[in-house]
Parts: sequence; C-alpha cells; structure tokens
Amino acid sequence: MNQERVVKAGLLGLGTVGSGVYKLVEHQKDEMAMKAGAGLKIQKILVHNMNKKREGVDQSLLTDKWEDIINDDEIEIVIEVMGGIEPARTMILEALHAGKNVVTANKDLVATHGHELLEAAEERGVDFLFEAAVAGAIPIIRPLKQCLAANEIQEVIGIVNGTTNFILTRMIEEGMDFDDALALATELGYAEADPTADIEGLDAGRKVAIMASIAFHSRVTFDDVYTEGITKITAKDVEYAEEFGDVIKLLGVAHNTEGGIEVAVHPMMIPKEHPLASVRDSFNAVFVHSDAADDTMFYGRGAGELPTASAIMGDVIDVIRDIQYHCTGRISCTCYRETPIKNFKEVKNKFYIRMLVDNKPGVLAAIASVFGVHKVSIARVIQKTKADDAAELVIVTEAVKEKHLEDALEHLVDMDTTREIGTVIREY
Amino acid sequence: MNQERVVKAGLLGLGTVGSGVYKLVEHQKDEMAMKAGAGLKIQKILVHNMNKKREGVDQSLLTDKWEDIINDDEIEIVIEVMGGIEPARTMILEALHAGKNVVTANKDLVATHGHELLEAAEERGVDFLFEAAVAGAIPIIRPLKQCLAANEIQEVIGIVNGTTNFILTRMIEEGMDFDDALALATELGYAEADPTADIEGLDAGRKVAIMASIAFHSRVTFDDVYTEGITKITAKDVEYAEEFGDVIKLLGVAHNTEGGIEVAVHPMMIPKEHPLASVRDSFNAVFVHSDAADDTMFYGRGAGELPTASAIMGDVIDVIRDIQYHCTGRISCTCYRETPIKNFKEVKNKFYIRMLVDNKPGVLAAIASVFGVHKVSIARVIQKTKADDAAELVIVTEAVKEKHLEDALEHLVDMDTTREIGTVIREY
Repeated sequence: MNQERVVKAGLLGLGTVGSGVYKLVEHQKDEMAMKAGAGLKIQKILVHNMNKKREGVDQSLLTDKWEDIINDDEIEIVIEVMGGIEPARTMILEALHAGKNVVTANKDLVATHGHELLEAAEERGVDFLFEAAVAGAIPIIRPLKQCLAANEIQEVIGIVNGTTNFILTRMIEEGMDFDDALALATELGYAEADPTADIEGLDAGRKVAIMASIAFHSRVTFDDVYTEGITKITAKDVEYAEEFGDVIKLLGVAHNTEGGIEVAVHPMMIPKEHPLASVRDSFNAVFVHSDAADDTMFYGRGAGELPTASAIMGDVIDVIRDIQYHCTGRISCTCYRETPIKNFKEVKNKFYIRMLVDNKPGVLAAIASVFGVHKVSIARVIQKTKADDAAELVIVTEAVKEKHLEDALEHLVDMDTTREIGTVIREY
Repeated sequence: MNQERVVKAGLLGLGTVGSGVYKLVEHQKDEMAMKAGAGLKIQKILVHNMNKKREGVDQSLLTDKWEDIINDDEIEIVIEVMGGIEPARTMILEALHAGKNVVTANKDLVATHGHELLEAAEERGVDFLFEAAVAGAIPIIRPLKQCLAANEIQEVIGIVNGTTNFILTRMIEEGMDFDDALALATELGYAEADPTADIEGLDAGRKVAIMASIAFHSRVTFDDVYTEGITKITAKDVEYAEEFGDVIKLLGVAHNTEGGIEVAVHPMMIPKEHPLASVRDSFNAVFVHSDAADDTMFYGRGAGELPTASAIMGDVIDVIRDIQYHCTGRISCTCYRETPIKNFKEVKNKFYIRMLVDNKPGVLAAIASVFGVHKVSIARVIQKTKADDAAELVIVTEAVKEKHLEDALEHLVDMDTTREIGTVIREY
C-alpha cells in the first residue's frame, strides 16, 4: 500500500454536520494513512454564502460553484451534507455519473430516490454509502447489509427520532404534558423551530423506509410508510401505560410478512422489559429480529454534529479502502426482491383506547357490541375514573385489522353515550 | 457479475456451530447468488469421526483428512469452527499460506495468536475474518473496524458471557444464591459441565482482548487481561447493590488511557440507568464510548448454533464479494500503534467492600485509619446489620489504585477486630 497517497474529497455543505466532518478530517489527519491506507484531504467545500465567517476552516477551500467540484478530476469522493431533495439529488447523480464515489447523510433523499442513486452508482461501479442517513452515529446500514446478510430479517423496530424520544422521556419520567415537554425540547435545542417533521413521525418514517428496504431486500419508499405522531399522547396515557408495565415510544415499525411488507411510524406501548423501553432521552436504537441471529439491538446517538460526522467518516474511510483496492461499488443495491407493501388498513395491531362515556347501565354492553360487530375482539376493559355522570374507560383489544378498528371507532363516535374518544395507541 | 459462479468452501468442524453454518448455507442456497453475487457450496467438511450419524448432512462431504481440504484448489474459503488452539492454528496458517480466505469463530485462537494469523493473511492478500469470535451474533468487529473507524475509542465495556449473565440475572431477579443459579444454568444447558472458563471470566477475557486490540489499534492478548469471576458474589451483595440503585454484572472492561491500555474482566456494580444494566439472561451487549460517536451499544445473542452461524455467514458473504472484486485482504490488521498495557495494580477503580467486624467502640475509626494509611479514600460507610458482638459494614471507596486497595485489605485482614472480609466488588 502506498502510504503517500492522498485521496481528495469535495464537501457539499458546511452546516452543523459539514463542520463536524471537517473537524474529524482535521483531527484524524496524521492517522488517516494508517487507518485507511491513504490520506484524506478535503479539497473543496461547497457553500451558499462565501462571505460568512467560518471558524477554523481554511477559507481557500470554499466555493459557491458546483462546477469547481464536479469538474475537479482529482476529487474521488463527494460528501453530501446539505440535506433536502434538490439540488442534492442532481449533484449526487452528476457526481456518480462522473465516476465519483458519494457519501451522504441525506435521509429525505435516500428514502425517496435511493434506488435511482444506487442504480447510478452501480452503473459506474462507484460507492454510494449512507450510514449517516439512519440513526446518526449508530452503525445500522452496514450491520443490516453485511453482518446480518445471511439472515431472513423479519422485524425492524426503531426509536429513530431523538426529539420525540426526548419529549416522551420527559413525559414518562417527570409526568410532563406533551406541550411542556415540547417546549423544553425546543428550549434545549432538541426540537427545531418547526417541529412538525419530528413530532408527526415524518423524520422517523424516512429512516424506517430506508431500513426496511435493506432489511427485506425490497424497495420501500417514504410514500409507503403510514405515519402518525405523538401530539395526541397525554400525561394520563403515559400514566396508564406505566400501570400496565409499559412505556410509550414513537416507533418505526417494519415487518416482513407473508402478505407483504408492513411499514409504519406511530406511538406504541412496549413492555418495560423490552430492550427498546430503556432507551432514554435523545438516544436512538434499532431492534432487529431475524431467523438466525434472533434479537439484536443497536443503540446510540441519532443526531448531532460529531455523531453524524462519525457515521459519514466511517463510510468515507471505507471508500478510501475501496479506491485503493479498485473495488468501489462492491456493495450496491441489495433489493433483489419485489415484495408488495401491505395496505396499512390490513395490518393487524393491538390497541389501547381511552374514552369517556355516559355513566349509566347498558353503556358497556353497547360498546362491546359495537366492537363485536366490527370484528374487534376485546382483551380487557378497565373503568379508570368515574364522575357523577361520566366514566373513563380503557379498552385493550386483541390484534385486529386497522380497518376494523377504524370502523368500530367511527361507529362509537356516533353513539349518543360516547362523550369523547380520547387516545388510541397501538400495543407491541 | 457472473451469477453462475459458485464459490467453494471447506468447513472445519461439524459441532453445534458447524451444523448451524451448514444449515444456513442450505437455507440460503437459492438466494446466495443474489445476496453475494455468487453462489456458495460447502465442498468438504472435516470431522473427527466419519462414522457418526449426522442428520441432514450430505455424508459424501465428510472427510477426516485435512489434506483433502488444504490441497483442494477449488476451495477458496476455509470456515474454522473446531475451536481450541491446535490443530486450528496450524490449519488456519496453512490455509492462509495457501492463499485461502479464512473465517473463524475461534476466540481462544484470535485472542492469543490473532496477530500472527492476520499477518499471514496480509502477506497473501486474503481475508481473515472473525466476527463470530466475539459476542456471537452481535455485529461488533465490523462496527469497530469500519463504522467507528473515524473515532478515537476510549472505552469498551461488554457483557460478553451469556452463562454468567444468566446466573447473575437469576440472582438479581429471583434472589437466588450463586450455587443454585449455576445449577439452574447447568440444567438448562447454559453452563457447561466444567463451567470454569465462564464463571472465572476467562471466556470474557478472550473476547475483551480481541475487542481492545481493534478498538485501540494496539495489540492486546489474553495474557494481558486481568480476570476475576463471579463465584464470590452472594445474594446479599446483589441485594445491597439493588439498594444502591445498581445491578451486578460481569464486565469485560477496556479503557484507552494516557498511561496505557487498561483491560480486565471482573464483576462490577453498574447503575440501573446504564444501558448495560437491562441486558438480561443469556443476552450479551457491548457498550462503546468514543470521541465523535459518543455512546453506542450493540446487543444480541452471544452464543448458540444459529446466532454464531449468522455472524460466520456474514463474514463468508463478505469474502464471496471480495473474491469477485479481487479485493480480499482489503481490511486486515488495524493495530498500527504500540500502546503499553497498564499494570492492573495501577488501574484505578471504585470499590464496594462488605466486611464483618467486632461491634465495639473504635473499630470504625481504626478501619478508616487503615484505609487512610494506604491512600484509599472512603466515599461512604454503611453499617448494614448488627448482631450482639459483630457488625456488618459496607464501605464504598473513591477511585483508588488496585494496589492501594490490596494493601489496605491485607492490613485489614490482619486486624484482630476483623472477622471476615466478605465481598469486594468494583463500582462503575
């Protein structure tokens, strides 16, 4: 191995993650050749604003012209950390077509256009790696693609959004309401000014689409994912979950079943003994069940400057090795099946339903009858509180189809004795 | 990629793990070319006893002659699952010298002779992979070598022995004594007839040596590891740990410090909030702290037929890809440093000491003074129980050097008022 060789990279974006990548490259400068067999140099950095002062960054590397990078034949690796669909998609495609290897942290892009990008990489025999796009620092793409390659993976369940896990942890451990916990998350910088993508499960949905595609060897895009956020969870639900020995987590859930791939993001009650239950604060974790390895779980930081940069640089070091061994493109798209996505209405789940009803004789029987009509089997009914004329019920169902529960709830809403359907949460 | 190509492998050993590998190869036969770009065929299987009936295995593959495998030029991968140092070491070396790639699950061998084997692989440019040698099905070698490659890893702590974790879980959750829990583990097949290697921490010691070598880029062999088992832990210690909000786990502990590499296996009290604390029964987990990724943890089955075979086959599939891309040997030894191993006596730990002393005035002062003389700072002293003339004390120290604690304990043993030094357990 020629220890003198230095591989050149172009960095697209110098926000939080881009700065982290730059720092790690600087920090590891002296060791890179020993780690990867060749050195690494950031040759150019694409930024929007050339005039912005950027602490600790060699200003001469900055450019606002994509041509400077795409036309630089010395650049063998493009590291994309701008985020968003465009112009990232076009730039990555151009880079791949030009025979450059690409490493990205862009979950939006991979969750929607992953196949197109992997195909472009395959055509030119270059690497397209995206470990950082799912669950930040946590090694999950490489374990799914390589370490567990001999398995039939049946289930992937992940806490893959740190913001919502922080909020739920505060609700669980301090009895906070959702709004207060969100306010705290915003104050501490865990939630963005517009927290929609996090609290509505969209961010998690992109990650679970990527993981499901790899785990089940079949294309799953973000559009295939049913998403439901945590905004309706109340302190009371958290408290009742505790009574059942459960905690409420926002989970990305993917199952490979005979009837097709089930893929969704929604809050779920999981037993405290489940390894995911003890994943606290902004930490992420992905639980994988497969036929040979059985249960595995991968835990760590799902976001942040250096954690995300860690995942990116792990990919970059792999590319540097591949370049030297002339084996870029060695592991490309692994979607060799075409498994259908199951309509979410056909997916079976157990449900917890908290509702307020008139407190008078016959109400419970009427409710039970409605569930029965709609093929929803009830596992238990608990009367939680009782005022003069109203009673709060918690109903837990057996595993029933989403559409059947939906029908039953619509029916219940129309009943005179129903005052409010409170929260509906799935149970693991 | 030529989808018709079939890579041939020789399997050394057909015990539990070997059978698992055979089963997975059979099970994945139809998909292997799509997974790995080429098919896989077990060409020959080396066994001791040719006459033993082996359910479901093609008898024509069996041989008791190593020459049949080493001299078969079609065999490009040797999968070693015999265990033990010899003849595994000689066979693997011969295979590597002959230009064959090797995948092994042999922790004893890798923990002691890993460097020699990696060097032989490097010389011939072939793969030598051993994901299965540490923590069974859990992807840990590849994450450490690749995903976290850009990190300075500071700490690796693992529950890497399922037998002892099962025993401790029974002690924690059911208040069992060590002997009863061991008997149960034996009855259920978690413990071997001679459980020494497990309960004395030797098995965990081998695994932590391998992980430390990779994590810290410097050679650590089993001989470097201080090992202490769980035989002295009592139900009472487990109960006191619970009172402190801790659980007792047998941990492989490796730290990369300025003064050198600290590496040991011993029981430890860890706070219940630590991710390792909720790793129950025979499950394993490895917790890694590094500068960029921060905390990560890898959880799963540490042993068993199919879990171990899963890790082996992940490696085998990687080798098949490397063979096709002519890049075997791409990731070899990563020990590019020569960090000294710190003498264990110089390592600092916090200690929990349970002792029985005479119940009379001045005893506590005398004990405190002995600790002081030996530079051991005490964090707290709790008098747990008191009989007519004897008192049970629990003393918790600050972080102090092992040698200082040892000196203090020797001194304490000699005191007339000391009836018994019960248990000494390190605190995380």
